[in-house]
This record gives sequence, C-alpha cells and structure tokens, in this order.
Amino acid sequence: MEVKSLEKTIGYKFHNKTLVKTALTHSSFINEKSCSNNNERLEFLGDAVLELVISEYLYKKFPEKLEGELTKIRAKIVCTESLSTVSAKNNLGRYVYMGKGEENTGGRERRSILANTFEAVTGAVYLDGGLEEARKFILRFLKKNINDAANGKLIFDYKTRLQEVAQQRQGSIVEYRVEKETGPEHNKIFYVDLLLDSKLIGKGDGKNKKEAEQKAAYNGLSFLGVLNEK
Amino acid sequence: MEVKSLEKTIGYKFHNKTLVKTALTHSSFINEKSCSNNNERLEFLGDAVLELVISEYLYKKFPEKLEGELTKIRAKIVCTESLSTVSAKNNLGRYVYMGKGEENTGGRERRSILANTFEAVTGAVYLDGGLEEARKFILRFLKKNINDAANGKLIFDYKTRLQEVAQQRQGSIVEYRVEKETGPEHNKIFYVDLLLDSKLIGKGDGKNKKEAEQKAAYNGLSFLGVLNEK
Repeated sequence: MEVKSLEKTIGYKFHNKTLVKTALTHSSFINEKSCSNNNERLEFLGDAVLELVISEYLYKKFPEKLEGELTKIRAKIVCTESLSTVSAKNNLGRYVYMGKGEENTGGRERRSILANTFEAVTGAVYLDGGLEEARKFILRFLKKNINDAANGKLIFDYKTRLQEVAQQRQGSIVEYRVEKETGPEHNKIFYVDLLLDSKLIGKGDGKNKKEAEQKAAYNGLSFLGVLNEK
Repeated sequence: MEVKSLEKTIGYKFHNKTLVKTALTHSSFINEKSCSNNNERLEFLGDAVLELVISEYLYKKFPEKLEGELTKIRAKIVCTESLSTVSAKNNLGRYVYMGKGEENTGGRERRSILANTFEAVTGAVYLDGGLEEARKFILRFLKKNINDAANGKLIFDYKTRLQEVAQQRQGSIVEYRVEKETGPEHNKIFYVDLLLDSKLIGKGDGKNKKEAEQKAAYNGLSFLGVLNEK
C-alpha cells in the first residue's frame, strides 16, 4: 500500500518490490528488527547514478561552460541541502522505515535521512529499470534545480536551516549583527556577523542585509559541519 | 592513424572521430594552436561514468560489503594514482595532443595528464557508444585493480612516485630514517621518518622497513598535495 503510494509520487513502478523496500529502510529500523538489509548500499550506488545523470545533462545542455563551472553546479545539486529539500517537498520522509528512537527524535524530517533516501530510491530505480528510467526519475525531480543552479538562481534558505539546527541543540540562540556598512548610499555593502550563543560562527556580506545574513548562515552551517553531513 | 592505433589499444572503435580527438587534446595544445575544444569537459563526464560503473560492479560483486568499505575501495580506483598507472601501462600518453612546452617538461609522463586522459577517453566512449560500451572499456582496464583493491592487495609504489616528484623539483633529496623499532624480535614494528631536503614530510610504520617506508612515502605525497592533483 505504502509502496504503491510512493510509486505514484515518484512516477515509477517497480518490478522488484524488495528493492524499493530496501531503499526505504533506514539503518535504525534494521537495528531494532534485526532484518538484513538497510538502504546504505543503495545510497552508495544512487549517488553515483545521480552524478552521472546530472553530469551528462550539464555537459549537453551547457556546451559553453568549462569543467570547473560544471563541477560547481553539480556539487550544488548532489548535496544534502538540495536532495533533502526535494525529498521533503515530495514528502518522501513518510515512507521511510525507521526505528522508533529515530522517529521520536525527528527522524522523518532529518536532512541527512531525507537526502540519503532520495539517493537510495535513485539507486533502486536504476537497478530495477536501468539508466534511462533513472534519468527520467532524476530529471523529473531535479531539472528545475539544475537549471536554477546553472543560472546562479538556486538559493536555499540557510537562515531557516540554521534555526532548525539551533532548535535541535536545545534552544541555542542565533543572532545576526550588522558589523559595518561600506560604500555610497545607492551601492552599499553590508557586513554581518553571525553568533550562536554569543560565539562568532560565520560572517557574510551582501548588497542588502538579507543577502549578507544568508551568506553568514551558510558559512555558519559550514563551520558547524552540518551542510554536507551524512 | 594515431586514432586507429589508440582504438586498437583500448578495444573500442569510435563512430565519431572528433570525440576521440577532443578526448586526447590537452589544454596546452589549445593554447598554442587556439582551437576550440580541449578534453576537460569530457574528463568531467568520464569521471562520473567511472564512478557509476565501478560502484555498480562493487555493489553487485560484493553483496556483503558495507557502504563505507565500498566507498573506500572506489576511491582507490578513481584517483590520479590508479588511473595514471593504468594509462601509463597502456602507453596512452603517446596519443595526447599537447603543447611543446608541456611536452618538453615531461608532459607525456605527467600523472595528472595521464589520469585525466583516461577519464576523458572514458567520457568519449560513453557518449559515442553508451553505458554498456563504457562499462566494457572500464572493466577491461580496471577490473583487476578493483578486485585487488577489494582484497586489500592494490598497492602502488609510492616510494618511486616520491622519487619522481623529487626529481621534478630539481633534485630534492629524499631520505628515509628508521626512527625506532618496538616489540619482540619476531613481531617488530618499524617507525620511519621521511625527509625531503632534511625537512620531515611524512611518517610511517610497518612490520618491516619496506612497508613503513611505503606508508611514509604515501603520507609525504599527501603532505605535498600531489596524490590527487589534477
């Protein structure tokens, strides 16, 4: 029943239902039920499928872009931030088999679980239907993000993300402080310090306060090591 | 003529000869002749093809191995050290179009060029013949290395590699010093310091001097940042 609903969401019908069940099984579920397969190996495979499909798409779609730029764009798509966002939007978290402990501590919304599930499902579609089916699946969910990233328009809301992290840390306090402003009125640059529990964890600059704060939040999340946590 | 010889070496005949020429064109050649395409974009694509083919091979061949282990094995194969070694063994360097300056400073033997050429040719085979042809090409050249890596038997000669690096640095002097030995006679451990021009750049330990020196050389190469240089 759950599998059918997921198949509808992702637009792909599995021949091998065991495969999709494995893709949805978080390691915490295994530990509690002592079954044999969790989704980590499929995640390993799915990550490589994503890399190839996105690389080929970028290679063909942007013949004028150099390797360095293509690499940067790809990294913005195949990362926890991007994949967890797509996963959350499509509510994939509800299908994951996970242990009670994981679930009770917010597992269904956890970024790493959401991103890894997306990768594992990608791996399962690839094994079940081959590269072309995997490509269809991936581009259905990520094409807009890829094009946005290529045009410099893929921006995640890092301030909200940092707020989530602070909450998980039992109410740490996040504070943004404009450290200085430079330049003439019509062409100002804002410099913002980001403090977590009064400790400086990131800086950012930008043409307005919002942009500077987003950059500071991104740098703060990098500093905390949560941006690409698995 | 050169293309035909390469095709014989790699066991694949290209439909689109422009593709293979691009795969063989190092950026230094472009700069001198001001043509339009070098192999860097194909290298970007080929890297992703390699990742997928090797991931799938490992996934299917070693169902008992966990994700972490698979990731480590893959990293040992898709790296400059491994790909340049395969490339050199098959003499791919002779086919590369490169600038005179590059050639005169040892470009045909340069690790980064050899590895990148292997990736670019992989990308070209994939675009020209599809995933199955790319898989055949990759496994023909790398299957033994993959299996060796999986069994912990893939060992590169890092001492020789460091010697090459020292030579490129106009005769820097490499020295290994046994710093200490511990344990009983039948179960000794050797600790070796590696010095480059009298400066400590790596340490290594092992059951014999050779093993300790290889480890020290590996650590020294990491320290110098040359192991995965592109």
